[in-house]
Amino acid sequence: MTFKKPNVLVIGSGGVGAIAALSLCLNDKSVVTLVVRSDYDYIKKNGFLIRSKTYGVIENWKPHNVAKSVTDARERFGEFDFIVVTTKNIPDGPVPCEDIIAPAITNNSTIILIQNGIGIEIPMLERFPKNPLLSAVSLIGSTYGDGVVENFFKDHIYLAPFANPNIENSLVDEKVRLFCEIYQNPDETKNKIEVDEEPQRRRWEKLVYNSVMNTTTALVNLDVNRCQMCNANDKLFRPAMVELREIAASEGFIIDEKFQEFFIHIGDGQFYAPSMCVDVRKSQLIEVEIILGNPLKIAEQNGVKTPILSTLYTMLKMLQLRMMEEKGLVKINPEDYNTNSDEYPKIVVEKSFRA
Amino acid sequence: MTFKKPNVLVIGSGGVGAIAALSLCLNDKSVVTLVVRSDYDYIKKNGFLIRSKTYGVIENWKPHNVAKSVTDARERFGEFDFIVVTTKNIPDGPVPCEDIIAPAITNNSTIILIQNGIGIEIPMLERFPKNPLLSAVSLIGSTYGDGVVENFFKDHIYLAPFANPNIENSLVDEKVRLFCEIYQNPDETKNKIEVDEEPQRRRWEKLVYNSVMNTTTALVNLDVNRCQMCNANDKLFRPAMVELREIAASEGFIIDEKFQEFFIHIGDGQFYAPSMCVDVRKSQLIEVEIILGNPLKIAEQNGVKTPILSTLYTMLKMLQLRMMEEKGLVKINPEDYNTNSDEYPKIVVEKSFRA
Repeated sequence: MTFKKPNVLVIGSGGVGAIAALSLCLNDKSVVTLVVRSDYDYIKKNGFLIRSKTYGVIENWKPHNVAKSVTDARERFGEFDFIVVTTKNIPDGPVPCEDIIAPAITNNSTIILIQNGIGIEIPMLERFPKNPLLSAVSLIGSTYGDGVVENFFKDHIYLAPFANPNIENSLVDEKVRLFCEIYQNPDETKNKIEVDEEPQRRRWEKLVYNSVMNTTTALVNLDVNRCQMCNANDKLFRPAMVELREIAASEGFIIDEKFQEFFIHIGDGQFYAPSMCVDVRKSQLIEVEIILGNPLKIAEQNGVKTPILSTLYTMLKMLQLRMMEEKGLVKINPEDYNTNSDEYPKIVVEKSFRA
Repeated sequence: MTFKKPNVLVIGSGGVGAIAALSLCLNDKSVVTLVVRSDYDYIKKNGFLIRSKTYGVIENWKPHNVAKSVTDARERFGEFDFIVVTTKNIPDGPVPCEDIIAPAITNNSTIILIQNGIGIEIPMLERFPKNPLLSAVSLIGSTYGDGVVENFFKDHIYLAPFANPNIENSLVDEKVRLFCEIYQNPDETKNKIEVDEEPQRRRWEKLVYNSVMNTTTALVNLDVNRCQMCNANDKLFRPAMVELREIAASEGFIIDEKFQEFFIHIGDGQFYAPSMCVDVRKSQLIEVEIILGNPLKIAEQNGVKTPILSTLYTMLKMLQLRMMEEKGLVKINPEDYNTNSDEYPKIVVEKSFRA
């Protein structure tokens, strides 16, 4: 019996998605289609320049197939066994991730989310209740811009099944096993994928950094070290991280203080701007709901007090509103908002269907 | 015996300073010199266009004397009986107010601060211990730009002596009386100056707005109403105002909740950007220390918890650092900050002596 290579669609061609496609292709156990949106013409012609700590420098690299949209991928490259989602996750934006991937979903698709944040699986499960859903946390350090991928650390993926009452566990476990097989390079110095027994714990741990340092630097448009010169460690980062750890603890995940101190000093001397800060510099929408909004809903349900994180969240919503209005995604008519009560009309985001 | 008209120097030719100079001149009981720095040549030639709710439209208006600096004023227009300070108060900036006014101070000078914030009198008293010091809160609504003063409300000044152990109370009280006399227009519909029996209370009351709505809008670069669409009233403004009122209460000033609600709805439907937000849009340094820094020192001394205001303060320091670096007032050498401890070198602001 011949092993038919699984057909994989990678959606999102940023630092994470490009390296995922590269890992799969080099491993040669699947057929890989990568959706490249804004730079489609350039990548189609020239491919990527990859500069990777573990894969080295690779010029003009292309996966098996390049598609310009999810619909284009589905039409030209068939049904997909795995749909790997590496886009930013912005449920308050014009196109939630469910809408992005919908055109590619068929009965046999397994969805794999390689994204940050808390609560990202729920909307997927609700929208696609009959498809196996896997959830992955990536530790990689990889950026993309103008055709160039800069990958600073070994791609390390923690993969886990997400509980779905409609599907047999054994089937989902088999999907996990299969994806690990097609993803894991035989030489483990190149990349590493492993099954995560406590995937939500890892999400909370990563959030200790993302919910505090990503958010603060995005709000003030300043790198981590410059923030730290303003006494941020004691006056903002640590107390905010304590709040985040208290939310995690209320969900049963005790996060040791050493994680906090590790993240506080992770960028010492590097004058590094986290991804959310970079997004704001480029006027790109930010992942405010999955990084802070969802954790704060949990905090409220569990009775955890979060004055600092709530302040950051409310200001990030303001920043997001400003960027959405600048992009024309939101129209504000002052007359609608001339009220002396606290009841304001709901902000309506223009939906754009970019599938 | 002839009443010799007092010689008055007004420093700062923004919305507050220009109207103060106008009030004094129209009242004709003093000789008024106004320091106009950046627009000196224009104002010297054309004067101001005043559009005032109470004084009406006045074209090409000039005070008795216009000086291009404090030193210029002192050299050309003699000794001053009153030195009225209406500049922004930025002790962390390149020129603290004491340095700005120093060239004009003589034995007989009475200093009058018409400025916002808490703790602004102390550095003045320390630097000029033998000069009477008056402290004033202004309610006016007045802006300046490109030769034009827009004054929306009646100029209302609350004036009070500031306790100085080196000077007889009766002497300072006499200065208060005299300044009220030369400032108060006979027609009280034009302006109003009165002695304030509880001046610090009024500073704290004004701070309910300034420490919360000025600061938040400055950080996110968004007007008050747009912030309120993001649920700011409940999630940020009110809880932050409660913290500010708790600091005031710890100093003996109980501020009624009605002030808070008044300020929450003061700009309904106006889509108004407070002055600190406007400053940031113009890349001008902000009054972060007197609006938040000093109140938070008091909170710490008095054991008042301020997680929200401390978060706003720390982020405003970051914003101020960014603007100072952009202006070349601060030089940051990454090698100095390559540390894995929490000890960072102190930020050194280049002093520029613009007296």
